[in-house]
Amino acid sequence: MDSSPQLRHILEAMADNDPTKLPTPSACVADEDFCLVPIGTPTASVSKEVAEVQRLLKKSGIKYSMHSAGTTIEGSWDQCMTIIGQCHSMLHANGVVRIQTTMRVGTRTDKKQSFDDKVAAVEKLLAEDK
Amino acid sequence: MDSSPQLRHILEAMADNDPTKLPTPSACVADEDFCLVPIGTPTASVSKEVAEVQRLLKKSGIKYSMHSAGTTIEGSWDQCMTIIGQCHSMLHANGVVRIQTTMRVGTRTDKKQSFDDKVAAVEKLLAEDK
Amino acid sequence: MDSSPQLRHILEAMADNDPTKLPTPSACVADEDFCLVPIGTPTASVSKEVAEVQRLLKKSGIKYSMHSAGTTIEGSWDQCMTIIGQCHSMLHANGVVRIQTTMRVGTRTDKKQSFDDKVAAVEKLLAEDK
Amino acid sequence: MDSSPQLRHILEAMADNDPTKLPTPSACVADEDFCLVPIGTPTASVSKEVAEVQRLLKKSGIKYSMHSAGTTIEGSWDQCMTIIGQCHSMLHANGVVRIQTTMRVGTRTDKKQSFDDKVAAVEKLLAEDK
Repeated sequence: MDSSPQLRHILEAMADNDPTKLPTPSACVADEDFCLVPIGTPTASVSKEVAEVQRLLKKSGIKYSMHSAGTTIEGSWDQCMTIIGQCHSMLHANGVVRIQTTMRVGTRTDKKQSFDDKVAAVEKLLAEDK
Repeated sequence: MDSSPQLRHILEAMADNDPTKLPTPSACVADEDFCLVPIGTPTASVSKEVAEVQRLLKKSGIKYSMHSAGTTIEGSWDQCMTIIGQCHSMLHANGVVRIQTTMRVGTRTDKKQSFDDKVAAVEKLLAEDK
Repeated sequence: MDSSPQLRHILEAMADNDPTKLPTPSACVADEDFCLVPIGTPTASVSKEVAEVQRLLKKSGIKYSMHSAGTTIEGSWDQCMTIIGQCHSMLHANGVVRIQTTMRVGTRTDKKQSFDDKVAAVEKLLAEDK
Repeated sequence: MDSSPQLRHILEAMADNDPTKLPTPSACVADEDFCLVPIGTPTASVSKEVAEVQRLLKKSGIKYSMHSAGTTIEGSWDQCMTIIGQCHSMLHANGVVRIQTTMRVGTRTDKKQSFDDKVAAVEKLLAEDK
């Protein structure tokens, strides 16, 4: 979301008149966090599928970070959503018939904050405890 | 996801070679369920923002259903994701500086199942109890 | 959360001194919404498992409402969480080796608001459009 | 979930007869991942609240790991859920009137898998790519 006053006016007018014509946010900074679960696979292990997702993310060039309960990515709304959709398509192509993904997506207009910045902000507060 | 054998082959090859070129799923059948939370607003009430989202959904023409803990929409991956992105953009344009949305998104290739079908399948099983 | 001034003081002191001794919230009003997914089951259908969950909820006496992307329940924090844990235990006992549940849980201290109230508040705003 | 044949029988019988009497799972191994959002706070920053949650987790002695989009904890179902409920109570006591938490909770009976194990399993697969 650009903060130039002119663009702001245009976006406000669109939001009032026809929000279905609005662009999607230019940044999902810091917390598009997703966790993809294959359903109806013969095994309870999902590491194979998670590894395939990591390979796709690596190939895509997007900034990403895997943790034990999901993967966080950082980019524009459309970039983030397209890549997760491609993960679904890839696993479907590989034979997984049903997939459920849960996501937490954050956007903000007051500042740019990468996922490293977010963790750093909390760690700074915790460091003051000592 | 089309099930024609030819398209399947193409998708499988893309999944192997370069999944970042794959199309996103053509259908998020039945459970793109999302819940949008504004952060840093002066009041604990979110009904104003939820109402704005419902108006946008209505205007967009997408199939949707509001429940007390979110809204379920049904369409192609890109349609669903674009509309939710526009909800963020609209609220940002209206002055909300930070938004977090959580989603559950399901795709399947074995059958088309609308969100009404899903509830009906469970209710059919429960009806057999009597 | 009781709003009597005396109890507030006690809770504030506990929050400062040892929050690990705090009671859990007495109400998860309106949106403990959960969606349970079995992993490693032979079929992509989950309606059998969802039906079993509905039966348990009915038997428990808790207020609940199923929608296409999950089920919303209403009660104290411990009641809500215990019941969802029992759903996991029940499905495990029935042979499902792995389960993932996603939840949205809301608590508020400013007013009691049931899940019907939440939907009503939004519908009131939308009705004013006409 | 104990795997002794005797206990299995008892649990199966309870699941059939009255699942509302079942114990909750003894382990939420590896992915009780939660993200807590205060609603109606004057600022869009949530690092203060996240830091308070980290302090409570530290004090509680539970195994936990913060990442940029949430915190993962590991323990029995009741331990995990009670602590997150106490986080809500603590923030309420500190003046936050409304809180929404989203969680992904996993339980499995086929093996014990810590959150480090999960990441290691995926990284092992990825290492084989080279």
